[in-house]
Amino acid sequence: MIKETLLDTDELILEMMEHLTSGSGKNLRAMLLLASAMDRDGFVPRDAVIAGAAVEILHLATLVHDDVIDEAEIRRGHASLQKQFGKKEAVICGDYLFCISLAMVAEISNHYSQKLNVYTQAMTKICLGELRQFKHNSDTELSVMNYLKIIAGKTSALFSLAMYSGAIINECSDKEARFMGRIGYNMGMAFQILDDCADYESDVAATKKTVKHDLAEEVVTLPLIYAFLKKPELKHHIRRQQLSPGEINEIIAEVVKVGGVSMARDVAEKYYLKTKKMINTLTEDNKKLLMNEILGRIWKVEN
Amino acid sequence: MIKETLLDTDELILEMMEHLTSGSGKNLRAMLLLASAMDRDGFVPRDAVIAGAAVEILHLATLVHDDVIDEAEIRRGHASLQKQFGKKEAVICGDYLFCISLAMVAEISNHYSQKLNVYTQAMTKICLGELRQFKHNSDTELSVMNYLKIIAGKTSALFSLAMYSGAIINECSDKEARFMGRIGYNMGMAFQILDDCADYESDVAATKKTVKHDLAEEVVTLPLIYAFLKKPELKHHIRRQQLSPGEINEIIAEVVKVGGVSMARDVAEKYYLKTKKMINTLTEDNKKLLMNEILGRIWKVEN
Repeated sequence: MIKETLLDTDELILEMMEHLTSGSGKNLRAMLLLASAMDRDGFVPRDAVIAGAAVEILHLATLVHDDVIDEAEIRRGHASLQKQFGKKEAVICGDYLFCISLAMVAEISNHYSQKLNVYTQAMTKICLGELRQFKHNSDTELSVMNYLKIIAGKTSALFSLAMYSGAIINECSDKEARFMGRIGYNMGMAFQILDDCADYESDVAATKKTVKHDLAEEVVTLPLIYAFLKKPELKHHIRRQQLSPGEINEIIAEVVKVGGVSMARDVAEKYYLKTKKMINTLTEDNKKLLMNEILGRIWKVEN
Repeated sequence: MIKETLLDTDELILEMMEHLTSGSGKNLRAMLLLASAMDRDGFVPRDAVIAGAAVEILHLATLVHDDVIDEAEIRRGHASLQKQFGKKEAVICGDYLFCISLAMVAEISNHYSQKLNVYTQAMTKICLGELRQFKHNSDTELSVMNYLKIIAGKTSALFSLAMYSGAIINECSDKEARFMGRIGYNMGMAFQILDDCADYESDVAATKKTVKHDLAEEVVTLPLIYAFLKKPELKHHIRRQQLSPGEINEIIAEVVKVGGVSMARDVAEKYYLKTKKMINTLTEDNKKLLMNEILGRIWKVEN
């Protein structure tokens, strides 16, 4: 569905779309939406497939703009769009993906009165999350609380949106839908913290993300925050303008050594356990099974 | 309304919003929407005010991203957002403006079944128009037809959207609304061609746009296309990588001299007259008057 939608497009942008669909995303957000939209008999409405694709395309739009912003060269194991086609093209391609995603939501939104608002609200949150992140780049005084606020906007807003919309499509009550949204929120938190830990532990090949480490952009994440608490001298490294690859490796080793990563993992585990507990209160077995599987996959891949 | 909406925001982005609202836009698109939404008694529904602001904010979003893409330093007489706050911030700020605009449309869209689609379709057209423009940068063989296609997407799509949505809000039939949309389309074409002519005639202070001339970005517009037809040797200048200010001034003088600008103005006049004729078929006097005034202002300011 995602691939088909992206490739059914104006020839002007086809080449970029082909490039984007050649990478391998995990489609976690779409899977969550589908799981949330599934009824007791395991049936998933067609609208959920459309909404799931819309959420993934929205995610892709944010990735394309992220890569422009970070000047990333690799994304999902391929050259990033901006590397391959140029920055200007990537900015517009991101806008175009936003449009497609919205058009898909608009297509189904009239079946669900007023609920489209959630979608635009989530988009706004994501933008603010990104901005908040920039504002705290190189900020060695970033608190755990503010870090959590950043990733709540950047990542959890979309996970939450996926779960909430799925429930709405499954004709759940607003209360039930909001509960699903909270499951998504907590899962998103666990996912992002684990992802930030992975940046301190794996090499480029494994994360398939970018050759640039968070540290190269001076993005302060949880492992680093905890490392600062343990060893404040580390802060001096970050105040410099541009870190060399050697320095980055040194800081990474230090962050691992002083326990920054394992402390961050403990926080991720709390969100993981909270999510698991919430999933297990669900009465529908199909849904419970599928969501636990997705949660397990996040925990395993990122852990 | 536009100012209030933009300033009623998260403090994270407030400074950028303040910067944006300090410039002076002409709000042409909002005015067209309001005119189109006005009923026989001159009454304009509240939804039209929201939709008008949404259209201007969408326009602002495209300007912010345009400035990132063109590396423009001036916009609406002030430093461009990307110059003032940085490129990264500007990319996200543009995304944020898209979100606000959409949220406003979503707020009113449930009053008008399914019509939101037009909005996302117009957004998609604008993106494709922009892409088409890049593709033809430095393209000395760009045909008049393809130039018109570019500006139809880039500019007329939004003018058309404004007029169409206004009519829908005024509870016109779809046929009437489509007619209004076509008025907007033709007005947009006249506006953009005149704007492209102005780039060959005025200095920075007058256009309040950007210190960079279209030629600096090797954007090929109608006056240049006609000049190529009259004097094909001019093409050789464009095939070079980066034009010096001296060369730009030389080409500008040449384009004016061989009649490129006046030929382009003739095309703009055709669209102007067509628009005028269509407006004059309207039966509502209030509306006719207001639209003729807006059209007259475009013709006067840009002519």
